Amino acid sequence: MNKKMIAYLLGRILLAECFLMIPAMVVGAIYSEISALSFLIPMTILLLAGLIFGFKKPTNTVIYARDGFFVVAAAWILMSIIGALPFYISSFGRFGGVSQFSSIWDCIFEMVSGFTTTGASVLSDPGSLPKCLLFWRSFSHWVGGMGVLVFVLAIMPMSDSMHLMKAEVPGPVVGKLVPRMRQTAKILYAVYTVMTLVLIVLLCIGKMPVFDSICHAFGTAGTGGFSVRTEGIAFYNSAYIDIVLSIFMLLFGINFNLFYLILIKKAKEALKSEELRWYLVIAALATVVIAANIFHEYHSLGSSLRYAFFQVSSIITTTGYTTADFALWPALSQSVLVLLIMTGACAGSTAGGLKISRVILLFKSAKQEIKRLLHPRAVTTVRLEGASVENSLVRNTLGYFTIYIFIIVVSTLLVSVDGFDFTTNITAELTCFNNVGPGLSGVGPMSNFSAFSPFSKMVLSLNMLLGRLEIFPIIVLFSPNLWKKNG
Amino acid sequence: MNKKMIAYLLGRILLAECFLMIPAMVVGAIYSEISALSFLIPMTILLLAGLIFGFKKPTNTVIYARDGFFVVAAAWILMSIIGALPFYISSFGRFGGVSQFSSIWDCIFEMVSGFTTTGASVLSDPGSLPKCLLFWRSFSHWVGGMGVLVFVLAIMPMSDSMHLMKAEVPGPVVGKLVPRMRQTAKILYAVYTVMTLVLIVLLCIGKMPVFDSICHAFGTAGTGGFSVRTEGIAFYNSAYIDIVLSIFMLLFGINFNLFYLILIKKAKEALKSEELRWYLVIAALATVVIAANIFHEYHSLGSSLRYAFFQVSSIITTTGYTTADFALWPALSQSVLVLLIMTGACAGSTAGGLKISRVILLFKSAKQEIKRLLHPRAVTTVRLEGASVENSLVRNTLGYFTIYIFIIVVSTLLVSVDGFDFTTNITAELTCFNNVGPGLSGVGPMSNFSAFSPFSKMVLSLNMLLGRLEIFPIIVLFSPNLWKKNG
Repeated sequence: MNKKMIAYLLGRILLAECFLMIPAMVVGAIYSEISALSFLIPMTILLLAGLIFGFKKPTNTVIYARDGFFVVAAAWILMSIIGALPFYISSFGRFGGVSQFSSIWDCIFEMVSGFTTTGASVLSDPGSLPKCLLFWRSFSHWVGGMGVLVFVLAIMPMSDSMHLMKAEVPGPVVGKLVPRMRQTAKILYAVYTVMTLVLIVLLCIGKMPVFDSICHAFGTAGTGGFSVRTEGIAFYNSAYIDIVLSIFMLLFGINFNLFYLILIKKAKEALKSEELRWYLVIAALATVVIAANIFHEYHSLGSSLRYAFFQVSSIITTTGYTTADFALWPALSQSVLVLLIMTGACAGSTAGGLKISRVILLFKSAKQEIKRLLHPRAVTTVRLEGASVENSLVRNTLGYFTIYIFIIVVSTLLVSVDGFDFTTNITAELTCFNNVGPGLSGVGPMSNFSAFSPFSKMVLSLNMLLGRLEIFPIIVLFSPNLWKKNG
Repeated sequence: MNKKMIAYLLGRILLAECFLMIPAMVVGAIYSEISALSFLIPMTILLLAGLIFGFKKPTNTVIYARDGFFVVAAAWILMSIIGALPFYISSFGRFGGVSQFSSIWDCIFEMVSGFTTTGASVLSDPGSLPKCLLFWRSFSHWVGGMGVLVFVLAIMPMSDSMHLMKAEVPGPVVGKLVPRMRQTAKILYAVYTVMTLVLIVLLCIGKMPVFDSICHAFGTAGTGGFSVRTEGIAFYNSAYIDIVLSIFMLLFGINFNLFYLILIKKAKEALKSEELRWYLVIAALATVVIAANIFHEYHSLGSSLRYAFFQVSSIITTTGYTTADFALWPALSQSVLVLLIMTGACAGSTAGGLKISRVILLFKSAKQEIKRLLHPRAVTTVRLEGASVENSLVRNTLGYFTIYIFIIVVSTLLVSVDGFDFTTNITAELTCFNNVGPGLSGVGPMSNFSAFSPFSKMVLSLNMLLGRLEIFPIIVLFSPNLWKKNG
């Protein structure tokens, strides 16, 4: 392992986080909030750590796969812990005495939930938080959505490193848009920023206050789900806002490489994407099924479609915004939503979950296995996006899925120590692990995660990180192999 | 496909089922039950069909993998439908008017549940059924546990066919005990019969009535779970009976090949089995965790251990007998039991579920995948029972697991159309698919499956067959590839 380079990268990332806290302080200044001062201590820590470790670039900048995994995992954990400090500090009387966070564990849970774009909260009344903290929560979605390392890669001159991208960008394969990684990162962030700005404008047009529009656009772009209103998006009760958000959530669930293709006028190629088609078909089907299933509750086709489309779009993209208490919907609608929690949206987007392309790969390799049983000697290959898929990727995807299920089973077991009902435990685990936010029963849209023990909160926080970084970096961090000298 | 041979085999199997109904009629005669006559019509059908199709052995007796899958799947479906007729016929006034079965779907569900050794029932008061029907229910567990084709192979001279065994015997690999398949089948049934007889004697010693002992021994040997008492095993309230059953359930969850090894005095080799060790470790751990978790309800270490051990043994072997309403136990205990529903016991036993050896294989291949990420160029192999596992088997196991999860997801979705709560839907699916019997909430130990719609009952019945035959035969039956001429 190239320890010097790892320390340097971590230093740079912490420095970046320090700068990312500035907008939140500015928001606090605008609204003259005393809580804005709670950012000072973490910013000092980040600045010092960043300058010490990230000051001098080592001569050897080569990064291997292992190093990439390590940097990404360590960076996300460090960022979350230090990023949680403003919440913690603000709970002291001197800094405004925000008493909703009952412990440091609550603060860490909330911050991990922010960066991993989960949007699960421990707050019963988020609407009453100071605006600077609300902004920081939502902004963390925006940063975590596209990725912190992608951000660092975009703003700093560095020898190109595929391994860092690989570890942070979701999906079974990472596509390079252009030969140089840094350019790719810049393009991604440019597309991301423009789309976010467009959404802010559209929300303002819909008479959503500017501050709310900015925060909700962050939450939508990062497919996060934190709201600045205790009632969520239902607060505005506007069909226009619901539809704008539904469409933009869906858009942010699309592989960003496709937007790039459209930019360079290859829209036709983009629309041919197998993953995109399945994604849209699944979302459309789910919307129709749920709309039909909830029709008798809303008594109008328009309302049923509006609420169904919003919830499907919100859950499949793993955003987690809500306009209705779907925990009260019929069982079929609930089951469809739980299924969407797991599939997630497209690879290379800001969404969580398994990713549609992975689900397609799993389906196809299962089909192949059946074929192989019937024709033991036939040579079969799995094809995706028109090209045949390497066996190693198929095996990797199957392995990923196996570990994915193991994690769900073990974590559900650990969380059930708290003694809540089965539906609460399993949906809490699923919604955190897939970075969605709301679950069913005790963690439904109208509830929050505060009732869990600190132990469960840490299990769920780890799950959010496992989900956002797609398991391997975090597992590798805990794997004894990493720490062996020649390992 | 060798159609003539398939027809011949199906004929022989139906003929076998006809003979298997005789003991139930004898029981009816002993207790002078009018319901015994309801076996006459199905027996006539079976005899005729058996004689027509199974009369002349075709000259070409070669069976391919596809044919094997087809015969097994078709045989199990036919046997279940015809085997359900006595339940249906007995509901008419002339044959005793047993009114607990409200429709033919209920009867099919009950019969599939019997043959697949699930033990899930639609009856609210099974204790009041005529004894001949109770016997038939329990006897179907015994027959279905070891397998109908294995039975046919054991009693009839036939060219050896591995493909038939493969399709019916559970587990990732089928071990031949002796070179000739017929001998293997005979040895398996001999061990099975002797162990069942020993259990009957032990239960009688515990003052369980003879009829109850026989039926419960069938249910235990086949890891089925139908009881002749509405209250289940709790009816006897005997620590002796609980412990005898706990131990025997565990025994019937062990790979029968190991018993054969013990018979030929290779006990040491048998005890070295990696699967056996994990099986016992998992059962012991689960018992300890649950006993600790329920201690405050039973106020004594002895009682806690007794109830925990019984339930763990019952669920891990997918039997499904109950001595306590575990739906009222704390969440952790429930989660552990749901986990055991999925793992199941050893391959080559009468138990359902994924099978421990498959779980070990999944674990190891997941571990291998992580290693491969850290050392992309290292050559790694998965080892099981001291030997390296072929890549094709690893891929097959990963594929199996993927389809396994897909089936759970889709079936839960279908069952939720009925509108029950999430826990009911998912545990109903899990308990049927893994051939266990009881679930949680609406399908807990004190409830039954009668409330489900006929559609859900058929979905769950199909799941029981999918679970018992380990998915592939049933899927192949519905696969268009099978029906292609050159397919």
